[in-house]
Amino acid sequence: MAPPWPFPPLLTMSTPSYQPLKLGEDGASPGRTIFHRPRLAILTITACTLFACMFYLWRPAGIAQGGSLYDALREGHAFPGMCLDVSPPSVSARANPWKNLAVDEVVQLRIWLFRDELGFNLTRSDIAQLSDNSIFLIENFRPPKSDVLAYLNEGAPPPERYARVTMHHGAHAEPVIRDYLVGPLPLSSVTTIRQLTEMYHEPNVPYNARGFAQMGEMVSAVKRFMTPLENITEELFGGTARGLPNDTLIASGSAPFSFDGSFRRHLFRLILAWLTWRRNAPGPWLHPLGFFQYVSMDGTDSSKWKLLKVVYNHQIFNSNEEFVAAFHNGTLKRLPSPDKNTPSWSSRQRRGPAPDLDDRAGPRSVSFNGLRYRVDRENQYITWMGWSMYLGFDRDMARFSRFRTITHSHRPQGLSLWNIGFRGERIIYELAPQEAMAQYAGNDPLQATTAWLDRYFGMGASVRDMLPGYDCPAEAQYLPATVHTALGSYSRERAICVFELDTGRPMTRHHGYLEEHGVVKGYAFTVRSISTVGNYDYLFDYTFFVDGTIEVRLSASGYLQGGYWEPKQTGYGTRIQDQTMGSLHDHVINYKVDLDIAGTENSLLETTTSVEEVSHPWYDDDWGKTVLQQHIVHRYIATEDEALLKYPKNFQGGYSVMNRNATNSWGNARGYAVHAGFNPIHNTVVGSKRLLNNANWAQYNLAVSLRKEIEPTSSSMWNMNLPGRPTVDFHRFFDSESLDQTDLVAWISVGTHHLPQTEDVPNTRTITATSSFFLTPLNYFDYDISIDSTNAILVNIPTEAGGEYTFEDYGVKPDYCLPPPVAPVTYSSGIEYGLDGKKVGPRNPEELRKHSELYHRMKMEI
Amino acid sequence: MAPPWPFPPLLTMSTPSYQPLKLGEDGASPGRTIFHRPRLAILTITACTLFACMFYLWRPAGIAQGGSLYDALREGHAFPGMCLDVSPPSVSARANPWKNLAVDEVVQLRIWLFRDELGFNLTRSDIAQLSDNSIFLIENFRPPKSDVLAYLNEGAPPPERYARVTMHHGAHAEPVIRDYLVGPLPLSSVTTIRQLTEMYHEPNVPYNARGFAQMGEMVSAVKRFMTPLENITEELFGGTARGLPNDTLIASGSAPFSFDGSFRRHLFRLILAWLTWRRNAPGPWLHPLGFFQYVSMDGTDSSKWKLLKVVYNHQIFNSNEEFVAAFHNGTLKRLPSPDKNTPSWSSRQRRGPAPDLDDRAGPRSVSFNGLRYRVDRENQYITWMGWSMYLGFDRDMARFSRFRTITHSHRPQGLSLWNIGFRGERIIYELAPQEAMAQYAGNDPLQATTAWLDRYFGMGASVRDMLPGYDCPAEAQYLPATVHTALGSYSRERAICVFELDTGRPMTRHHGYLEEHGVVKGYAFTVRSISTVGNYDYLFDYTFFVDGTIEVRLSASGYLQGGYWEPKQTGYGTRIQDQTMGSLHDHVINYKVDLDIAGTENSLLETTTSVEEVSHPWYDDDWGKTVLQQHIVHRYIATEDEALLKYPKNFQGGYSVMNRNATNSWGNARGYAVHAGFNPIHNTVVGSKRLLNNANWAQYNLAVSLRKEIEPTSSSMWNMNLPGRPTVDFHRFFDSESLDQTDLVAWISVGTHHLPQTEDVPNTRTITATSSFFLTPLNYFDYDISIDSTNAILVNIPTEAGGEYTFEDYGVKPDYCLPPPVAPVTYSSGIEYGLDGKKVGPRNPEELRKHSELYHRMKMEI
Repeated sequence: MAPPWPFPPLLTMSTPSYQPLKLGEDGASPGRTIFHRPRLAILTITACTLFACMFYLWRPAGIAQGGSLYDALREGHAFPGMCLDVSPPSVSARANPWKNLAVDEVVQLRIWLFRDELGFNLTRSDIAQLSDNSIFLIENFRPPKSDVLAYLNEGAPPPERYARVTMHHGAHAEPVIRDYLVGPLPLSSVTTIRQLTEMYHEPNVPYNARGFAQMGEMVSAVKRFMTPLENITEELFGGTARGLPNDTLIASGSAPFSFDGSFRRHLFRLILAWLTWRRNAPGPWLHPLGFFQYVSMDGTDSSKWKLLKVVYNHQIFNSNEEFVAAFHNGTLKRLPSPDKNTPSWSSRQRRGPAPDLDDRAGPRSVSFNGLRYRVDRENQYITWMGWSMYLGFDRDMARFSRFRTITHSHRPQGLSLWNIGFRGERIIYELAPQEAMAQYAGNDPLQATTAWLDRYFGMGASVRDMLPGYDCPAEAQYLPATVHTALGSYSRERAICVFELDTGRPMTRHHGYLEEHGVVKGYAFTVRSISTVGNYDYLFDYTFFVDGTIEVRLSASGYLQGGYWEPKQTGYGTRIQDQTMGSLHDHVINYKVDLDIAGTENSLLETTTSVEEVSHPWYDDDWGKTVLQQHIVHRYIATEDEALLKYPKNFQGGYSVMNRNATNSWGNARGYAVHAGFNPIHNTVVGSKRLLNNANWAQYNLAVSLRKEIEPTSSSMWNMNLPGRPTVDFHRFFDSESLDQTDLVAWISVGTHHLPQTEDVPNTRTITATSSFFLTPLNYFDYDISIDSTNAILVNIPTEAGGEYTFEDYGVKPDYCLPPPVAPVTYSSGIEYGLDGKKVGPRNPEELRKHSELYHRMKMEI
Repeated sequence: MAPPWPFPPLLTMSTPSYQPLKLGEDGASPGRTIFHRPRLAILTITACTLFACMFYLWRPAGIAQGGSLYDALREGHAFPGMCLDVSPPSVSARANPWKNLAVDEVVQLRIWLFRDELGFNLTRSDIAQLSDNSIFLIENFRPPKSDVLAYLNEGAPPPERYARVTMHHGAHAEPVIRDYLVGPLPLSSVTTIRQLTEMYHEPNVPYNARGFAQMGEMVSAVKRFMTPLENITEELFGGTARGLPNDTLIASGSAPFSFDGSFRRHLFRLILAWLTWRRNAPGPWLHPLGFFQYVSMDGTDSSKWKLLKVVYNHQIFNSNEEFVAAFHNGTLKRLPSPDKNTPSWSSRQRRGPAPDLDDRAGPRSVSFNGLRYRVDRENQYITWMGWSMYLGFDRDMARFSRFRTITHSHRPQGLSLWNIGFRGERIIYELAPQEAMAQYAGNDPLQATTAWLDRYFGMGASVRDMLPGYDCPAEAQYLPATVHTALGSYSRERAICVFELDTGRPMTRHHGYLEEHGVVKGYAFTVRSISTVGNYDYLFDYTFFVDGTIEVRLSASGYLQGGYWEPKQTGYGTRIQDQTMGSLHDHVINYKVDLDIAGTENSLLETTTSVEEVSHPWYDDDWGKTVLQQHIVHRYIATEDEALLKYPKNFQGGYSVMNRNATNSWGNARGYAVHAGFNPIHNTVVGSKRLLNNANWAQYNLAVSLRKEIEPTSSSMWNMNLPGRPTVDFHRFFDSESLDQTDLVAWISVGTHHLPQTEDVPNTRTITATSSFFLTPLNYFDYDISIDSTNAILVNIPTEAGGEYTFEDYGVKPDYCLPPPVAPVTYSSGIEYGLDGKKVGPRNPEELRKHSELYHRMKMEI
């Protein structure tokens, strides 16, 4: 609660229109304060009277237009006080069943797993070799839905807590990756461990599809492949790959590097970092060199990895020696050398003049009457205008490495929303991003083979603190998140932001008479998290509206994965600089939407409209006896076999999740419709071997399946490198099960066809690189419930000639008060914990950069 | 300029971070003031010091969290002053060549046209009968583009001004409608008049397609058809159609009422106004009765109009007598009687409880540093962040009538944008709505035959004052508009609003190192006008972004054109109340977009992506020798014959207007792309007789033609009633002309398939009833110019362990000041002028209502 405040919302000059204070009906409106100390009151009134007198006595000749303080005082307004409500009102939720494991819990789990009696023969993951056994990941295992519903709805005890543990069994005769389930937690004598197989279509994950816990072994291999070329790269590209801090070439890998786990080969492409680290050269993704190495990385001994091919300017060599020979004997056809100067065009520095009046800070949104959402920070629970939700944060795989390289990847982030309710009814049980696909095209070995599935690179770990006032509106509130990785844990204070905005567009309005003339304001409440994942930045927005609609929107920014420009690339993108092109690619991102409409028993409705020719008896010869008109056909889709779906042509109809047994007052089944938003696209290239069966959801706009605990997600971290034999095979969810009045999950995709253009430099614009879908009530209510809003107005026409219009504003008046100043921008790289749970002290600049490269941008992704 | 202001942005306690004042580089930053009167300074400093002392002395035990005034002072902030910049900075533009005719000019034109020497034998349009000659419309005639460009770009004198005059020649032996061109203006000895035929495909408009100038003749006809049924309608529907003020049934017509001008028949449907005018009963469109009369209105003598059919509950009668007989002899199958009680469900009154915290006014946007757009109010010229544009306002046909009835129509409004420039280059010469189509379906005579083309009902005249703070953000600025009609003129002060908002979403951002980490804020500037046209409300938004993108967006709200619910309507909509359904219909709205990319000589680029299988020499057997990947094909569309277009399937590619002779630095042709936004749909039913050839643009997403002065618009006010022989036949624009480097016009459509639902009650929600397209730079610039913004931030990582992040904010700091209070809402019905140009005094409530019905909602549309 805010303390008393002696500054006046107190002094009223005559008949104040200022509303000093309104407590919410439930009295739960903290942060607003009534002056109640008599001594202060007297002193303050004295001071303010003095002030008021000063205004009267020293009134200037003219007075500022548009409402001055003087005018306000003269007109009887109170002298405005500070707006005191600057933090969100509180709310107390039941404990969040999806809450992260604490750092200490993870530390204890590691200790527990290392016990000899379990026989895992583990090596600490920060020093483990590929040929060791190590813990790759420990994360929360989500409780069964039935347990959670019993807990939240029926007062049952909280669901038992379990952890999922991923282990690399590199020391096995046949190295393999396995998942385990450990619980219940906290650890006790009844805690057990068993292999977790039921949620995967392949119980044992091929070791060749593993994520990288650390990159030590890669350093030696790449050094071995690059050292013989040092003089040549210096001449051709103006740099070498000697290692930090002085190297100017940076390696980056392609994916997938396996089809079904049976081989693990990989393309290297060398990227010139035009400036060394010391020079702060930005945007290496826009500085490719057109030089590629094809490497075999079979087995756990990196000294046996082989260089298979070298490709440069469409010339193919079977070894470094062949390449070196061609270079020296003059047969090598060279590409133009890159400019030796520092490139600034790929930085985020300003370059042209600022627009007129841009020296003024732009408008910003202020809640003069206090914030209108409640936050339970401890339980990551939020309410706004009848909406309520828990937040979860995925601590899925987080990549660690000590090898300096650059990711091309864009990985979905860890924020998920749970038990989303509106007006007391659950609408969505789970809303969570699943996977992000990016498939490229080009006339070079890299772009033509790249198909990223970013879950491989981890979710959540790529989320960074946001910049207040820039990444989110100045008034936004932030929520923290902690993620656990193979090498430790991270906490970030500004992992998630929440804010309310006036959209500037009425939700509904009409001009008329007879209680027809009025407006309901169109407010929107957004929950946002941003993942910067190598070159790209993804903004995950979940926006809630006052009518019961949700928009799920993904916006992209950041750097292109550029290619080396030469005329043979025509048709695969656009030249954006002397030697750089933007390469054609598709992004498709999949969401799990577990809708529950008036309970868990729901059905899938297909609505189509078509043209019919009908005859009506009342038609005359004037127009003929028949008419062409639209007609709606509703059909409930019986089984999963028919539930792999695309938006209909010309969007004539669509798909909705309905409860056939729950009707509104007019007999319509209640439901929520999936309404296409921006860029309603699906994947263009279907059937390519690099993406054969591991991302089949991407070829649909949406798909609906029976909800099963053993089908919790549409992908897995290993899917990327197993296109031929994915750990999770989405198509196998669709096995003829009934969709009639049962628990349904909609798997809905968004995406963009990215045909790059010069305006992608330096960074892609969110204005068109954005895609969304709406979940919107469909005969769910008896009427549009946004009409119940009191942030609304109803106009009464005058009752006599020349009379005044009057207005019903339901008593909602904007407070006249001084909002606090915008705090200076601060930034933090977060808190890091080691495997032992102890804080890792501040890092020096080089460590920070290295650390950042590893975790933010420079992760080795081969 | 604002006067000096004695309140301190003055007192600084130690090292203020407060920036007292920044004048724009051009010094054109009015409304900001520096204190400069010594006496005031001394007094004010004294007062403020006193104030500051009070804070120190009387500091309360605790202090409000989140930044109090006390904290601000203690931390050395200046005590904030008022935000003085509350009006937009000014700019002086050359005279607007598209500006409305003044009221006086129109009055003088009427007098000029009435002169005997012209031989028009005119009757004043407010008293004219159908068999008289009268002036239907006088409006500005737009000057030729070449004249305007010479004027704006080359300093040529302003283009000569002309007026377009539409006359009803009812007194001719063969009554006809003709358009005339009068000019140059102002009237002088050289002013001439000639028939205007070159812009129409039919020079003489059939009199049967005429608009209604007044409804006198309709009153007698409808009375004649309804009086015999008075007792019956009282029993069946609980009301009669006796006329104001006591009637409770309101007639409304269908359209079209002619196919090619050869007949003029019309359906009446009776709608129960559940409450009389005195009871303020709302939303009659949701209270249909299922009762229809089919009327012939051939000829100019309404006493000869005939009742052809009566339809009630699927029973057809050839006369009132047959219907009366069936009623009395008991063979009439009745529908359930409507509820006699006052219906409140169709009003905009609140009905349920307000959400938690909705008693607080929601957040609002404030430009603490002053507005960032400039306005030349006189010339309706605006600039913002490098954008500039003139506004036009169409005074197209405005319907007048004295007959009380209800429109079903939604008519586009009068706002158009001209000479839209960005960074000194014209991008669009004309951006203007053309026509709005609504085609219904149903199992009754009305919905199955309705196809509105709302231009018939006029543009511009349906625009009403907006509600500040509700229809537009509180800070929006308003611009006026004047429209001229057959019976007079109207001026409205709040016809157009303009405002800037922070979208809350960065335009670009990236998290990284080396000048990669930063954000450019995503501001948007919107020009809005709202037309309430009978039941529906259309929000026309033109939104400009800092990167050069424009979004053209139409949002709909207001009332459905409901139908009478009975089970035979299944498939044509949704039951939304006991006896009411929402009827299935399509909306399609067409815009003219005259793009000029680096001049007027442009070409139309088609971009498509497809899947190719290619073999690359560097592939190994691991993956096979071939790859499936995307490929881009660019093709310039040669002629208009190939330029009737739909968005490609799965949005794989699209259409752009390019200048092949203007390339950016990397050799790419400069252009602007049409990027689909929300609801990218086209008309579903093509080929229906009621819409056979008069709205062919609606079957495409876009079409591109050679720009011609004689093809100024895709429709005409008479098209609605001439589907078989339209005055403007859009398809005839497409006659094989070359599109290679010539002046192009894109005709782009937006729309919605409206499958109504209970949430359309009381009014349709803009959240999903919205449609848009983007016009976005495509290799137009060398890079994304939004990076030049100074409302942006660049992050510098610390240079030592544990060091602080620093930030480059380009000196743009938010002002810390008190914005003025939100002014109380006021409203005006505008200023009315008679045919003589004199103001018409305040109207009494009944006149106002009648007036409103005529002009706003109740216009007779038959």
